[in-house]
Amino acid sequence: MSKATSTKPLGGMRDFLAADVVRRRYVLDVVQRVYESFGFVPLETPTIENLSTLLGKYGPEGDQLLYRLLHRRDKLARAIESGADKDAGLTELDLAAEGLRYDLTVPLARVVANYKDLPAFYKRYQVQPVWRADRPARGRFREFYQCDVDITGTSSLVADSEVCSAIATVLRELGFSDFKILTNHRELLRAMVSDSGISAEQESLALIALDKLDKVGIDGVKQELAQKGIGAAPADSLLSSLERMSADGALQEVAGGEGPGARGAKELLELFDNAAQSPAAEHLVFDPTLARGLSYYTGPIFEVQVDGLAGSMGGGGRYDNLIGMFQKQQVPAVGFSLGLERVLLVMSEREMFPRLSIGPELLLCRMAEVPAAKAVAVASELRSSGLRVEVYADPAPMKKQLSYANAIGVSHVGILGPQEVADGAVSLKALDTGAQQVCAVADVADKMSS
Amino acid sequence: MSKATSTKPLGGMRDFLAADVVRRRYVLDVVQRVYESFGFVPLETPTIENLSTLLGKYGPEGDQLLYRLLHRRDKLARAIESGADKDAGLTELDLAAEGLRYDLTVPLARVVANYKDLPAFYKRYQVQPVWRADRPARGRFREFYQCDVDITGTSSLVADSEVCSAIATVLRELGFSDFKILTNHRELLRAMVSDSGISAEQESLALIALDKLDKVGIDGVKQELAQKGIGAAPADSLLSSLERMSADGALQEVAGGEGPGARGAKELLELFDNAAQSPAAEHLVFDPTLARGLSYYTGPIFEVQVDGLAGSMGGGGRYDNLIGMFQKQQVPAVGFSLGLERVLLVMSEREMFPRLSIGPELLLCRMAEVPAAKAVAVASELRSSGLRVEVYADPAPMKKQLSYANAIGVSHVGILGPQEVADGAVSLKALDTGAQQVCAVADVADKMSS
Repeated sequence: MSKATSTKPLGGMRDFLAADVVRRRYVLDVVQRVYESFGFVPLETPTIENLSTLLGKYGPEGDQLLYRLLHRRDKLARAIESGADKDAGLTELDLAAEGLRYDLTVPLARVVANYKDLPAFYKRYQVQPVWRADRPARGRFREFYQCDVDITGTSSLVADSEVCSAIATVLRELGFSDFKILTNHRELLRAMVSDSGISAEQESLALIALDKLDKVGIDGVKQELAQKGIGAAPADSLLSSLERMSADGALQEVAGGEGPGARGAKELLELFDNAAQSPAAEHLVFDPTLARGLSYYTGPIFEVQVDGLAGSMGGGGRYDNLIGMFQKQQVPAVGFSLGLERVLLVMSEREMFPRLSIGPELLLCRMAEVPAAKAVAVASELRSSGLRVEVYADPAPMKKQLSYANAIGVSHVGILGPQEVADGAVSLKALDTGAQQVCAVADVADKMSS
Repeated sequence: MSKATSTKPLGGMRDFLAADVVRRRYVLDVVQRVYESFGFVPLETPTIENLSTLLGKYGPEGDQLLYRLLHRRDKLARAIESGADKDAGLTELDLAAEGLRYDLTVPLARVVANYKDLPAFYKRYQVQPVWRADRPARGRFREFYQCDVDITGTSSLVADSEVCSAIATVLRELGFSDFKILTNHRELLRAMVSDSGISAEQESLALIALDKLDKVGIDGVKQELAQKGIGAAPADSLLSSLERMSADGALQEVAGGEGPGARGAKELLELFDNAAQSPAAEHLVFDPTLARGLSYYTGPIFEVQVDGLAGSMGGGGRYDNLIGMFQKQQVPAVGFSLGLERVLLVMSEREMFPRLSIGPELLLCRMAEVPAAKAVAVASELRSSGLRVEVYADPAPMKKQLSYANAIGVSHVGILGPQEVADGAVSLKALDTGAQQVCAVADVADKMSS
């Protein structure tokens, strides 16, 4: 109510005016068309989920970044009244039981567990915003869109290949050619961690440290491993074995062996083979250091890398144990998520957008003698012929109306004077050339497109 | 994490599977196209707003129904630690400072106040979900979409006519013909309330009671007026003057007089005249009892009524004082909001949807001898020709693959055996007739459309 309220959007959130919306829409149209060409069908899930659906799926950092909703005032008042919040040390259940969507994968897992009549292989795409109570930074927002494809119900690496192909096709159709889909396998990675003498308990800490390799470099990773209590010897051993794995032929060599690491390597080779004649083929690159932060991945993992962008444009992987957190049976699944904001960022920097137009094409102006009802009637007729038409609302001098036409960037104005009204015509003026002609209302659309 | 977590969406929220999404999209496509034909440009605002932006705009009931976000744990812990929550009686500022979007009008007002380079007449449309912590019921959800058009910067009743025309055009294009746009004027209504001897302090209570007339009837309204401390004499007087206003010619008679009521009546007549040759013309109906719940309306008010639907499909009106709550100068504005869920409800009941299809058109199956990579390659080629293609992921007997094709409802399957691969062909089978033919991969799209 107070005039002092800031009118800016909250930190990490954005208003999208018409020029922003039209760019977002351009990318999302490509995403939707390509995803559907791969046979994916759309899903939309609620913004608000049970906190218990969300907690424990993203790792401790994720739990921390969840947006939580306050209970209704009365319920909350009772909880505080009874001291429940203090006794329980402010647990979520006392103060909040609901949270905002944090990604699109966990809601998918819930949906698969809930609807028993989905196809055996549920191929869904989902394009919706997610929220994270993170510190805002360049290219990092608190509200941002993800564009996900996932295939549930199959362990076949054809599915892994298909999600990579879908992502690669989207990016190629948007005009990207230089991107890489970095690929690794959680089993291969875990085998290397374990072979280096790092304990099973320290494994996830080691992966989180490793995930920052592209940001902090080898020394940074060593430092973080040390901080997490991992000795210098196993740390060095891990980093050397990662380096050996980067050599040509190393993956094939490991695949010839036995054990979980070999199984991971074999799966990667099979995946690359599946995708060999797909749009993803030239983009897939084995990267033994790729770790991915999220805890739920179990098999192949992916990350889209493009020159000039710190961080990734998207990522994904196989998560065969997540759906089983919502029901008795495990259901294998693999998915890939494209980050809309990152894609837009790079496309803007590289000026990859075609000319996109939006807004009215024609402003209908009227002289003082012409009743407003006449302008409204003519506008209706012009709209029926497919034109986007704005009626100048106020009574105003023609000069002011024309100046407004320039300000909003219409290509044409239509002027209604008493003579035009009598003749069922408008004076059509092209703003770029200034050329003006009188033409029948029914002919305006044709004249404008010629 | 626990297996006991419900997998259902929260009460009042919904998962939209493919068949739902395609219907929602069908309606939204019409909404977007029509709104743009009127020269409106899109706007999207953040899901989360400052609570101070939202509070005090919707009336006391609205404040109550706002979804509020919990402060981050640490901040909240400090507030409770210090006792701030108790001292302040649980004010929002201590426990929450942010809330979820409650409608699209208040965010628009904030945007108009924030961006100084918007056009003099900012005509924007906005299609986004809003949230209300209301008791869920049939057709009443906690998360639902609104489709708004608004024109700011002009007091001209051409703008009021244009938003009504836009709504009428959307509904007509969706196949509605029997809807009414009930219309009244806040000034006219306030004059009647005041002339009945109801005090200025009781005016908004009287309007809220009146707003329920279509739900509770005359006796119900009388009862509520009595409960709110409005005497029987003024209540009867108000109801009789409303009845008199319903008579033919009454509006014209009032318009011939003086004072705010006459001004309201004159504006309504001007609005009807402006719209006389517009798509709204045959739908606009003067309803002197229409009150609208929201507190911010100042001039003409609207509500869309359709047979067989309790409540409205949408509503709107003029609110010349709202934007001034966010900046020094007042900016006049008028808008109309269509409720997507209500539109969908009626369209479903009346079976107004055309046949809408989604999902893959062709399932690509392969015999055991055919490598997966081959199927992926053929799928890529088919997709390039514009088809929506799913690759059967698992190695499986052909019978199982065909049965899956039936389950997901594709029109065709393409079968790859060693011979087809050698010939660059697929065996194309139409599932409705069972007809099967071998054809070159390049010809499949043509064959399917013929």
